[in-house]
Amino acid sequence: MEKIGVIGAGSWGTALSLVLANNGKKVTLWSIVESEIAMLKEKHEHADKLPGVILPESITFTTELKETIEASEMLILAVPSVFTRSTAKMMAPFVKEGQIIVCVAKGIEEDTLMTLSDIVEEEIPCADVAVMCGPSHAEEVGIGLPTTVVAGAKTRKTAECIQDTFMNEVFRVYTSPDILGMELGGALKNVIALAAGMADGLGYGDNTKAALITRGITEIGRLAMKMGARNETIFGLTGIGDLIVTCESKHSRNRKAGMLMGQGYTMEEATKEVKMVVEGIYSAKAALALADRCDVELPIIREVNRVLFENKPAKEAVSDLMLRDKRVENEILDWEV
Amino acid sequence: MEKIGVIGAGSWGTALSLVLANNGKKVTLWSIVESEIAMLKEKHEHADKLPGVILPESITFTTELKETIEASEMLILAVPSVFTRSTAKMMAPFVKEGQIIVCVAKGIEEDTLMTLSDIVEEEIPCADVAVMCGPSHAEEVGIGLPTTVVAGAKTRKTAECIQDTFMNEVFRVYTSPDILGMELGGALKNVIALAAGMADGLGYGDNTKAALITRGITEIGRLAMKMGARNETIFGLTGIGDLIVTCESKHSRNRKAGMLMGQGYTMEEATKEVKMVVEGIYSAKAALALADRCDVELPIIREVNRVLFENKPAKEAVSDLMLRDKRVENEILDWEV
Repeated sequence: MEKIGVIGAGSWGTALSLVLANNGKKVTLWSIVESEIAMLKEKHEHADKLPGVILPESITFTTELKETIEASEMLILAVPSVFTRSTAKMMAPFVKEGQIIVCVAKGIEEDTLMTLSDIVEEEIPCADVAVMCGPSHAEEVGIGLPTTVVAGAKTRKTAECIQDTFMNEVFRVYTSPDILGMELGGALKNVIALAAGMADGLGYGDNTKAALITRGITEIGRLAMKMGARNETIFGLTGIGDLIVTCESKHSRNRKAGMLMGQGYTMEEATKEVKMVVEGIYSAKAALALADRCDVELPIIREVNRVLFENKPAKEAVSDLMLRDKRVENEILDWEV
Repeated sequence: MEKIGVIGAGSWGTALSLVLANNGKKVTLWSIVESEIAMLKEKHEHADKLPGVILPESITFTTELKETIEASEMLILAVPSVFTRSTAKMMAPFVKEGQIIVCVAKGIEEDTLMTLSDIVEEEIPCADVAVMCGPSHAEEVGIGLPTTVVAGAKTRKTAECIQDTFMNEVFRVYTSPDILGMELGGALKNVIALAAGMADGLGYGDNTKAALITRGITEIGRLAMKMGARNETIFGLTGIGDLIVTCESKHSRNRKAGMLMGQGYTMEEATKEVKMVVEGIYSAKAALALADRCDVELPIIREVNRVLFENKPAKEAVSDLMLRDKRVENEILDWEV
């Protein structure tokens, strides 16, 4: 496909617009924020969210949603998860039957416990809703560092269409039919990244963090599989891969927010300091509600909720997690003698 | 058990001696290197390999192997993997029937393709051979940062005995019956860490590295399961956990050696610069031989071998890996439509 509309001009929407423009696509980048579009038009750079990355002249910047949707064959929905439903509602009247909408944000809606693709399907039933995610910090994609992501769709045809549209030498796109596994991995890893950040903020080392990440992916897998996702997805690029990059990278805002809480900031203070949307805070409560509904134990996510919403000191939370008296690594494995 | 002999005074043997001494155990730390023992006796510090970590007076330092073994109830074998067989040969005459020997190094013997516990069992058939590993850089254990490891043994009784001996507030020991999975994960991750280091040395970012780690653990799992190990182990602390810490930590010598090769050093130059034993170099060839024997494809490990032993430039190897035309993430998952 040649004409692509990117809905949302945050760091990820902006970086993906650059990938598409580099692939020779006709890109329209939309934002609801007039000052943001004015800045993009003037500087060809998102000075706040992706500084230093110069966007080509071929990209059109606009605040006109109707025109963007009608001029595009494929739509990329890149607004933060909390704005997914309201944006989808605004888009609905203009979307054509079968138009592909690729959700590239990550999150679970707090009230409904729906994934983002579920929300978009509910609001825009005529669309062909897909997802794309993986270990992909916008800052690195913006400067052309090799990155791999996965396109998940209901049909192979749609998945391959997204792949063909985005794929290039440094932006590798794999395909998958497991949309649910991809979305759960993407949303829940932000909560684990808050915990990993807390460990960093408390001055713990790489040993502690690796243990948290390992037990974190097990936790995500436990819930995701109960909900019908596939194990292979959880241990693939959109699961463990994305979890690793979110917990380790200096670019991760979830990790950074957690780090500040580890240093004693409250949730509100940390969010203010990070400036960008911290998706993990929104997903934490939803994850816990899903766990209760599915009757699954999620100790790390539970402790993160206590720090976020019950003022439990991060030090106590991490220490409670590390020092739990669980002594066999995996209960499925047992001795004969 | 109260009297423990630690065989090998490298960074890990020294750090474990400290853990045991802190637990009130009577520790004898042995090295074949007289100057090393002289330094430890004089300074109560391993100035080369674990600088800044002061060892308690209660630890005995010695070059007398017979006395060490005879005075100990449990033995910890902490020499580098390449010295495992020769050390086991020296130990054999003195080991008592049923004496527990815990292998804490990682590697596969190049000629025989045996794991370290296999080697020790062959050389010392009367011993009760076990393993202990996990995401645990010695430098962090030495300063008391929270760390988790797994004790693997043939019987629950032995595994729990090792657990009780090492466990404390900041050194958490889980148990497992899957010795083979633990050893394969521990040996092969060093090879993947060389690749991750190469990506770092080439200036690639966190996205690239997360993709390498994710595809790396899949590769390790493929071989390990073919050999009879358990999936749960590969995705547990001694598999993905240890892989993450080895690929991400500044303390990792495998990663550091890879980084230097990414910057253009040859294998010999990189090894010289790192100073300590780079286990991954020894395991790389063995891993490839195992793959051939088991008829399993290991693309990352194969490319690492080419860089190490065929002078392939690291840039070409990483680029060949990242740009392979594999387009469905997981072939087990497929679409109905």
